[in-house]
Amino acid sequence: MQFFKVKTVEETFALIQEHIPEIREVETRTLEEALHCILAEPIVAAENVPGFDRSTVDGYAVFAKDTYGSSESMPGFLTVAGEVEMGKEAGAPLSRGEAIYVPTGGMVPPGSDSVLMIEHCEEIGGLLNTYRQVAPGENIIRAGEDIKEGEVLLEAGTKLRPQEIGALASLGISKVNVYRKIKAAYLSTGDEIVPYETESLKVGQVRDINYLTVAGLAKGWGVETIYGGITADDYDIFAAKARELYEQADILILSGGSSVGAKDYTTEVIQSLGEPGVFVHGISIKPGKPTILAVANGKPVIGLPGHPASAMIIFRLFGEKIIKQRQGERHGKKPERLFARSTKNIPSAPGRSDYIRVRLFEKEGEWWADPIIGKSGLITTLVKSDGIVEIQSEKEGILQGELVPVIASK
Amino acid sequence: MQFFKVKTVEETFALIQEHIPEIREVETRTLEEALHCILAEPIVAAENVPGFDRSTVDGYAVFAKDTYGSSESMPGFLTVAGEVEMGKEAGAPLSRGEAIYVPTGGMVPPGSDSVLMIEHCEEIGGLLNTYRQVAPGENIIRAGEDIKEGEVLLEAGTKLRPQEIGALASLGISKVNVYRKIKAAYLSTGDEIVPYETESLKVGQVRDINYLTVAGLAKGWGVETIYGGITADDYDIFAAKARELYEQADILILSGGSSVGAKDYTTEVIQSLGEPGVFVHGISIKPGKPTILAVANGKPVIGLPGHPASAMIIFRLFGEKIIKQRQGERHGKKPERLFARSTKNIPSAPGRSDYIRVRLFEKEGEWWADPIIGKSGLITTLVKSDGIVEIQSEKEGILQGELVPVIASK
Repeated sequence: MQFFKVKTVEETFALIQEHIPEIREVETRTLEEALHCILAEPIVAAENVPGFDRSTVDGYAVFAKDTYGSSESMPGFLTVAGEVEMGKEAGAPLSRGEAIYVPTGGMVPPGSDSVLMIEHCEEIGGLLNTYRQVAPGENIIRAGEDIKEGEVLLEAGTKLRPQEIGALASLGISKVNVYRKIKAAYLSTGDEIVPYETESLKVGQVRDINYLTVAGLAKGWGVETIYGGITADDYDIFAAKARELYEQADILILSGGSSVGAKDYTTEVIQSLGEPGVFVHGISIKPGKPTILAVANGKPVIGLPGHPASAMIIFRLFGEKIIKQRQGERHGKKPERLFARSTKNIPSAPGRSDYIRVRLFEKEGEWWADPIIGKSGLITTLVKSDGIVEIQSEKEGILQGELVPVIASK
Repeated sequence: MQFFKVKTVEETFALIQEHIPEIREVETRTLEEALHCILAEPIVAAENVPGFDRSTVDGYAVFAKDTYGSSESMPGFLTVAGEVEMGKEAGAPLSRGEAIYVPTGGMVPPGSDSVLMIEHCEEIGGLLNTYRQVAPGENIIRAGEDIKEGEVLLEAGTKLRPQEIGALASLGISKVNVYRKIKAAYLSTGDEIVPYETESLKVGQVRDINYLTVAGLAKGWGVETIYGGITADDYDIFAAKARELYEQADILILSGGSSVGAKDYTTEVIQSLGEPGVFVHGISIKPGKPTILAVANGKPVIGLPGHPASAMIIFRLFGEKIIKQRQGERHGKKPERLFARSTKNIPSAPGRSDYIRVRLFEKEGEWWADPIIGKSGLITTLVKSDGIVEIQSEKEGILQGELVPVIASK
C-alpha cells in the first residue's frame, strides 16, 4: 500500500477541491420544493420586474417640475385629473399642471416622473394644494428597476434561499431545474460499538452516537442519510457491507471503531471500492488526526475518527465542504464563520490546526470566545459550545484579546 | 378603535416577550425525529458517560509513578501483565511495576491511573521499556467525566442540535419529550395581488411572492406553513377566511395588500379574532413601518407589510422571535448575529431603527459590510445581500469603519 504523509488542513481543503466531482444530475422542482436546493442552470429574466412604473406610497402622480417651490407657507396648485385603481392600468397620460391619485403599489400614469405623498398635499374640490416639492423619480419604482428583462438573475450553482425563491416567483417562474438531492450512507465499525438504543451496557461497550450527530449535520445541509448499522471487525463482512452502501449512496461515511482490527481494515476496505482511492490519510489537526478521505469512481468516501467529538468536528469541517462540492453548490450563503476575541491565551503546536470548542458571549459590541475546559473526546464539550475557534497551522497559539475565526455550530 | 402609537424596535421585542404564550403541548419523538425540536423537560443523566475508565490512546495502562524519570536515554522497565480486549471488561487490577496493554477506547484496568502511548515505549519479550513519563490521569477519560450520573444534562426549552442528540444517545435515551411542532397559516390580501404561478400579468398586477419568502423562512425555523391563498378586499370574505385559517394554525400571518381597502380592513379583521388583539400597530423601523402584531386568545397574529423586501425583513426580525417564543425555545443556538465594519457612512433618523441590506466580505481577519444600493422595495436587494445591518434607534447613523451588528441571511 501507498505511503501517506499527514496533510495540513489547508492541503486537505485543496485536495477536496481537486478530487470531489459534482453530481450533475438535474431534476425539475416547483418553487416550494426547490427551497435550499442548488440551481443547475442560470436564470435569465424573461420580463421586467416590476412590469410597470409603480408608486411606493399613497399619493399623487405629478411632474416633479410642477411642484418646485411648493412649501407649507407657499403651496402650489394642480388640477386633479383622476385616480388610478389598484391592480388596474392607469388611464390617460398625465398633462402638465395635473395630478392623478395613485395608491401604494399602483401604476403611475405615463408622463408622470414622481409621486407626491398624500401627507404633503391636500385635495380641495378638484384642486390639489401641494405643500412640498418632489424630485424626479421620487416615490416611484421604475419598470425593470428590480429585475431587468434579459438580466442574469441567478447563476448556476446558487443555493436557493427564501429571497432567491421570491425573486424567481416575481418573474412568474414556478418550476426550476436543480441538482437532485444527494444521499449519504453511514457505517460504524468497532467491536466495542453497540446500537445507541441499547439500554444497559456491558463494561467496555459504548453506544454508537456518531450516526446521529453526523446524520443530524447532514440533514441540516439537505442530505438524507442511510444508516448501515454497525459492522464486525472482519475484513470480508466489513468490505461487503461497505460495498453495498457505496452502491446505494452518493457519499459513503465510515465511522472508524478504535479497535486494532477496524483500524487495519478501514483503509483497505476503502481502497477496494474503486480508483483513485485514498487521497488524505491523516490530517495535522486536533482533534481528528486519523481522518481518511477518498474518492472511488467519482464517489467520495469519508473515514471519520471514532471519537464522537472528533467525528463531529471533522464532519463539520471537511464533510460540509465535500457535500457542498458534491451537490454542485458554488454560490452558498455567507458568512460561514464569524470573528471573536479570545478570553484566554491558547497555545497550539505550529504545523497543526487546532479546533477549540468555545462558548460565545457579546460584550461591548463584539463577540468573545471562551474556551471550554474538558478533554477533546467529551461530547458534552460540544453540547456546551456555541462554536469552534480555528487556530491555523502556521500559528503557535492565540493571545488573550486576539480576534480569531469561529465556526458557529449549526 | 383604540389609538396606537408607533413603537420602537426595542419596545416591540419587549411586547412580544410579554404577549406571546408558549405552546406547551408535548409529544414523544425518537432521537432521529427530535433533531431541531425543543426539549419539553430537563434531562437528568441516569448513568455515567463513559461508564468506565477509558483509554484515549493505544498504549499501556500503568501507575504514573512507575514511569517517573523514564526517558529515551534512561528507559524504565515494567512487566507486561496482560492485554485488555476492545469492548471487554479489563481483568485483574494492575499491580505496581506492571503494565497492561489497552487499545484506544478500551477499559483501563482498576488501579491504573494513566496510559503510556505505544509510541513512547517498546515491548520486548514480556518486558516494557518506557521512554517517557506520564502524569496521573494522562490519556484516560474517567467514568462520568463526560456526563455524571444525576447531572442535569439539558434544560427544558433547549433546541436539540446534533450534539445534544448525540449526548442523549450516549446515555441510552432513545425517545424524548419535545414540544410539538407549530403550524403557521398565511393569507395574502390586495386587489393587485395574483398567484405567483400567473404566467402573464395584466398591467397593474403583481405576483404574490411573500408566501414563498415567508414560508421559506418559517421552514428553516422548523415551522410548517398552510397557504390560505389571496383574499379579496371585502371585509366579510377577508374576516371569514382569516378566522378559518386562525382556527387551523398556531400563528396567523396576514400579508397586507397595499390597496386602501385592505389597509382599512386588516386591523379590524385582526381585532375580530379575539382578545386582547393588536399590541403593536406600526413600528419605527425602515423598512417595514406598517407592521401589525396581535395576540388573539393566545394565538399570535402578524400583519406584514405588503412590500416583499419589507415583509421578509420584518418576518426575519419579529416573526422569528415570535415563533421561537411560541414553540418554547429558551436555549437556542448562538450567535444570531455577527459584527462587521461598515464600508461607508450611512445616515439614519434617530428614533427609528434602520435595517440596511449588505454584502459581506472578509478583509484582514474581519467582516466588512458593504451597503447594497437600491430602493427598499426591491427583492433583488435581498438576493444580492448576505445579511442586514441594524442601525439602532438611538443612533444618527454609522460611520465608515464602525463595527456594526449584522443579522446574517438564512
